[in-house]
Amino acid sequence: MDTQRQRIALTGDRPTGKLHLGHYIGSLKQRVDLQTSADVLIMIADGQALTDHADRPETVRAHILEVLLDYLAVGLDPNSTTIFIQSKVSALTELTSYYLNLITWNRLKHNPTVKLEIQQKGFGDEVPAGFMIYPVSQAADITAFDADIVPVGDDQIPMIELTVEIVRKFNRLYKKEVLKEPKALVPSIARLPGIDGKAKMGKSLKNAIYLSDTSSDLEKKIKQMYTDPNHTKIEDPGQVEGNPVFTYLDAFATDHLHVQSMKEHYQRGGLADVKVKQYLFEVLNTFLTPIRERRKALSDDVTYLWGILKQGTLIANQRASQTLNRVRSAIGIDYPI
Amino acid sequence: MDTQRQRIALTGDRPTGKLHLGHYIGSLKQRVDLQTSADVLIMIADGQALTDHADRPETVRAHILEVLLDYLAVGLDPNSTTIFIQSKVSALTELTSYYLNLITWNRLKHNPTVKLEIQQKGFGDEVPAGFMIYPVSQAADITAFDADIVPVGDDQIPMIELTVEIVRKFNRLYKKEVLKEPKALVPSIARLPGIDGKAKMGKSLKNAIYLSDTSSDLEKKIKQMYTDPNHTKIEDPGQVEGNPVFTYLDAFATDHLHVQSMKEHYQRGGLADVKVKQYLFEVLNTFLTPIRERRKALSDDVTYLWGILKQGTLIANQRASQTLNRVRSAIGIDYPI
Repeated sequence: MDTQRQRIALTGDRPTGKLHLGHYIGSLKQRVDLQTSADVLIMIADGQALTDHADRPETVRAHILEVLLDYLAVGLDPNSTTIFIQSKVSALTELTSYYLNLITWNRLKHNPTVKLEIQQKGFGDEVPAGFMIYPVSQAADITAFDADIVPVGDDQIPMIELTVEIVRKFNRLYKKEVLKEPKALVPSIARLPGIDGKAKMGKSLKNAIYLSDTSSDLEKKIKQMYTDPNHTKIEDPGQVEGNPVFTYLDAFATDHLHVQSMKEHYQRGGLADVKVKQYLFEVLNTFLTPIRERRKALSDDVTYLWGILKQGTLIANQRASQTLNRVRSAIGIDYPI
Repeated sequence: MDTQRQRIALTGDRPTGKLHLGHYIGSLKQRVDLQTSADVLIMIADGQALTDHADRPETVRAHILEVLLDYLAVGLDPNSTTIFIQSKVSALTELTSYYLNLITWNRLKHNPTVKLEIQQKGFGDEVPAGFMIYPVSQAADITAFDADIVPVGDDQIPMIELTVEIVRKFNRLYKKEVLKEPKALVPSIARLPGIDGKAKMGKSLKNAIYLSDTSSDLEKKIKQMYTDPNHTKIEDPGQVEGNPVFTYLDAFATDHLHVQSMKEHYQRGGLADVKVKQYLFEVLNTFLTPIRERRKALSDDVTYLWGILKQGTLIANQRASQTLNRVRSAIGIDYPI
């Protein structure tokens, strides 16, 4: 029998909104699958959220339990997965402080993910310093737990590359294999488009279907959904590629044969958008109903929810402290006090 | 009787070399005077030292006890002054992480002290990110202990200004008077020139007289000292202003009348540099002998020395944690776990 060590996976979310179908497809589904085969740690990244929400901390605070509820509702099991709060693991900011010395200011300025986000968030010249360095704080999060794999969207790959760069620099400089190089794990469907047809579903883009949406929310959103703009008459042939209604069906329907025959019908002409949307509603409502119910059943027991985070944060602290001790000792600042 | 609260003073040094007469005049003397009237905390800033010594951590490690010995030798009393190690107070990096969100990247780039240091250190485009943000980490050090006053050289004033900016932004944003505004305390003789006549005495400039220099080191260094370059013949009138030999006498001689009469003699002509230097040697050797002896007497008792740092760091942790709790609560991330 193979007694190989379980792989360690670190992932997480900024608690700035409830999670949506884009999160599910891009990451949550993968985490649920991983938890039977890997040692999974999930971080509620409140510290990272504050890098662009310093003036709206109440949003961050309010979404700690919302995000946790989303996790539990999709089937993440707190008995096999460690769910913790970033800001309560103080080793992470200390590791960040050491890693910041290994990376130049210029290198951070040229991070493509951060550059794009600065544009999207409209920071202009007013980028908070904390936001500019958050990729280094991510490197601390990843290495603190010796993560082998980091499930991320493809837009996050430059972040993992920076972590690898820091790991190599650290190990070379301090002449020890102290930190572990992580690998990005990008899901096959990395990204779900928004209901408006835009490439990415996002809270700030107001084009998301939330895991907690009611069935009537869901119905309304699906009715508004962008389809093939040239498919104006039912009898016209419609386009399936880049049509989010079909992208969602590909991602969530379990009856693949039925989806295939609908696609063919739509392409031939004669299948109304409203019919496809009706089927999509059934599919998504079937998917979301148990999630919504689990979410509702758990949401009142606040003591239970904080208990999960307390336990997870305790474990996270124990593990991160061990890494911090190794790091301090490699640097040579492990004083006898 | 006045029962006014004692003022709190926070100061410290990067442990990258032994301390010299420039440190004494610019800061140590003031700290010794302050310790009877204020609540003095002194930080051995190993974390800050690593921002430009990440590749030479052994230098930082080696100077922790050297700097402590210098402190004790000049009369800092660990029973009334809290001496601690920066990297062992983890609240400081966490506070830094919150403050980084309140300051823009551009603001840090334009800090005049940092700009000058980047030039002096020859970083060019390779400035470590940790170095660029060290002023924010200093704001954390200062505010963590509610410091009212920060004894610094005049070149450090922009640092205190940045701290004040962060304090005001934080208190305004989180609608509470959580952090205290510090004031810089600049000594009357803020800066001692180097033995080469350059404006500043510095380890890296190789123009320093160390508190630990032996009497023969001292003699050699004084012999090499820069004086008035136009005073080539003994009978010529010499210049006293900008002549470091006289600047040192002003700073260290106790017989001011004698110094005054020497100055007049030198200005008239007829007083040889070698005579002035001989007197300076006597003055400095009288000053340094007890310091050197206390240093030597303490240097073997490593357990005692680490014990001082352990005790100071314990107190520093207790105090900084209280501030961190206030900060977390003001931001609203004081979770019930």
